[in-house]
Amino acid sequence: MTLVVSWVESANAAGAAFPLNNLPCGVFSTAGTGPRCGVAIGDAILDVAALEREGALDLAGAPLFAEPAWNAAMAAGPRTWRALRGRLAGLLAAGSPLRDAVAPHLVAQRDATLHLPFRVAEYTDFYAGRNHAFNVGALFRGPENALPPNWLHMPVGYNGRASSVVVSGTEFHRPWGQLKGAGFERPAFAPSRRFDFELELGAVVGLPSAAGRPVTVAEADAMIFGYVLLNDWSARDIQAWEAQPLGPFQAKATATTISPWIVMKDALEPFRVSTPPREAELLPYLHEDGPMLYDIALEVGLAPEGGAESVISRTNYREMYYSAAQLLAHHTTAGAPMRTGDLLGSGTISGATKDSRGSMLELSWGGREPVALDDGTARRFLLDGDRVTLRGAATGDGYTIGFGECAGRLLPALADPYAR
Amino acid sequence: MTLVVSWVESANAAGAAFPLNNLPCGVFSTAGTGPRCGVAIGDAILDVAALEREGALDLAGAPLFAEPAWNAAMAAGPRTWRALRGRLAGLLAAGSPLRDAVAPHLVAQRDATLHLPFRVAEYTDFYAGRNHAFNVGALFRGPENALPPNWLHMPVGYNGRASSVVVSGTEFHRPWGQLKGAGFERPAFAPSRRFDFELELGAVVGLPSAAGRPVTVAEADAMIFGYVLLNDWSARDIQAWEAQPLGPFQAKATATTISPWIVMKDALEPFRVSTPPREAELLPYLHEDGPMLYDIALEVGLAPEGGAESVISRTNYREMYYSAAQLLAHHTTAGAPMRTGDLLGSGTISGATKDSRGSMLELSWGGREPVALDDGTARRFLLDGDRVTLRGAATGDGYTIGFGECAGRLLPALADPYAR
Repeated sequence: MTLVVSWVESANAAGAAFPLNNLPCGVFSTAGTGPRCGVAIGDAILDVAALEREGALDLAGAPLFAEPAWNAAMAAGPRTWRALRGRLAGLLAAGSPLRDAVAPHLVAQRDATLHLPFRVAEYTDFYAGRNHAFNVGALFRGPENALPPNWLHMPVGYNGRASSVVVSGTEFHRPWGQLKGAGFERPAFAPSRRFDFELELGAVVGLPSAAGRPVTVAEADAMIFGYVLLNDWSARDIQAWEAQPLGPFQAKATATTISPWIVMKDALEPFRVSTPPREAELLPYLHEDGPMLYDIALEVGLAPEGGAESVISRTNYREMYYSAAQLLAHHTTAGAPMRTGDLLGSGTISGATKDSRGSMLELSWGGREPVALDDGTARRFLLDGDRVTLRGAATGDGYTIGFGECAGRLLPALADPYAR
Repeated sequence: MTLVVSWVESANAAGAAFPLNNLPCGVFSTAGTGPRCGVAIGDAILDVAALEREGALDLAGAPLFAEPAWNAAMAAGPRTWRALRGRLAGLLAAGSPLRDAVAPHLVAQRDATLHLPFRVAEYTDFYAGRNHAFNVGALFRGPENALPPNWLHMPVGYNGRASSVVVSGTEFHRPWGQLKGAGFERPAFAPSRRFDFELELGAVVGLPSAAGRPVTVAEADAMIFGYVLLNDWSARDIQAWEAQPLGPFQAKATATTISPWIVMKDALEPFRVSTPPREAELLPYLHEDGPMLYDIALEVGLAPEGGAESVISRTNYREMYYSAAQLLAHHTTAGAPMRTGDLLGSGTISGATKDSRGSMLELSWGGREPVALDDGTARRFLLDGDRVTLRGAATGDGYTIGFGECAGRLLPALADPYAR
């Protein structure tokens, strides 16, 4: 696949994140106007809600963009998703006879505020990267027992808190929680001292599944509307004390930041790659009938307050052991239905090398090996004021598919979180 | 408090679950009519949606019952909850001058189908009963290490799957899942063999909380709209294999059954009791400034397919170590907001004696001591066709506050869950 040329010139620039091949889905507002659905094209946003109201996007018989969230379009299914992409491509392609009708519905991205692109129904986070699972296991249980016994047989996951999901740019305070240091007899309630990021990709479920009916990996893949970058902020010290025996809870309940743009699955088709060779044969319900991962280059930038950013990790989504379709198929095995708007985090994406690890816990090896930043400071975990930015790009023949920045800044803990 | 007499005669009968003191909130439909909000009174349901349309319940300036779910009323807050109870009590009290206007909006419960009373925003399950935590810990780690180190310091909990929540009466199939018996080298994908119930009480959040703002126990108590009976069906064998290191996942994702009626907190006020003495001093953020548990007698009935029911457990909600207000306060510590419609399971409610344990895992001590039923059969775990019914009642001076049955029947596993 090569660049599809648009009359929106900025979409054709080398390295542009939003060429006509991409058309990712977001929700935006501008001064004096409320949030509405749009797609990114070059340095602009096309107001698809306005186009729909004008009758230029009648794809499903019913409005897809009546509310400021992509859920209705996500629920409409793959034929509508494809038809939408086709229609938008026609409107925005170089030489389109409709250019003059469409151009008034372009808004400059610099004038727009971006909101959560969809209503998150439920949020589930997995642990589907082998390097991450090995690193964390080695840190806490030693390299001999690093991978839990179930790990090579199923995508291990846990339900997260949907209300913690926020859009890129949302600031939040370092959380308080129960901490208990080794050697202390009793826990304290105090601000987390080991606050971390996790580089992940999130799969966004479009089509729901029926109660009591597990889905195959192929069916699961067809249910996925698209992908977002996802930062599953984690308080390692809260987690260490709370997580036995029922898993992480408040450690993951401060914020989960996602990129403002959902990249539709069709935009990623040219970048499909297979999961790595299986180290243990998977049960049939987890079998893939084709490549289900994507070649998406990822990086993590960390900028101290008022300082320049250092890139502290570079990795790729193809490092995952389990694909999002496998996570989703596993998620349905026991019978609970999946719903439009469910968000599935991949788990931390770490490569095999030290500079490709997707969390500070791994980069600093549990805090023992500080990570040097370009400004001469170092980090074991995040400091107040630190801004973490995730970036992702799939690179085709002369074009790039970007997600937009997935950024968040850690504010200092509240002096008294109960003060009103 | 004594019985408040209603002109609905059945509400005044001895032992009636729904006297005027109760007025629990549900959603019902009848042949040919769609679901709508109602409150139970005696053997009838009062159609509050119809009353509101007629102008008899203008409490909040905006409609509370425009949709078939209690969420709008739940979000309206304690003053509206109290005003609603007062208004309904006035309409239904013996001697009410409005009897003739109200009577046409009563529907016989036997003619009604009951639906989920509210849209579940998110579902969290806790582990807040000391006897249950001790029993399960003793089964898996021995009595010396039964309670995890954190247990006496915080309500341990995990996020569940909201889409698994179903109303009493919903049947479901025994789930398939990954099982790995001791001595087997590899897991199998097969129907669960150790399928269980868990007797719990669920707290229903009415008022939301703000992001980044933990709430005190007193604030949390004020946010709670009411309580439901809750059966957190559990596949013990799936759980044993999947739960390390991130906690239960598919083991709890088949169904979570709740009673059809939400008993409002005000109806339970006369039954408040204190949590038991603290075995370790709690951190200040978990301090209670008054009694936060309730004296609610609970029982579990088990009926084999086509057979009579045996009561296999009798216990009380006052057995819990942590109150729902403490669970909710702890839930907000890390910053994620709580939302209208959040459902918090107490965790299994087990008494100190063998016949007061709230799960088959504990009653049969891990399957080692079969539980005798009245029909001469015995159970280690649930058999296909078994119907489990939870019941709860708070008993005042001449009246009872009931929840309605929380029942579910386990159908056999599908022969092939992937057949279409």
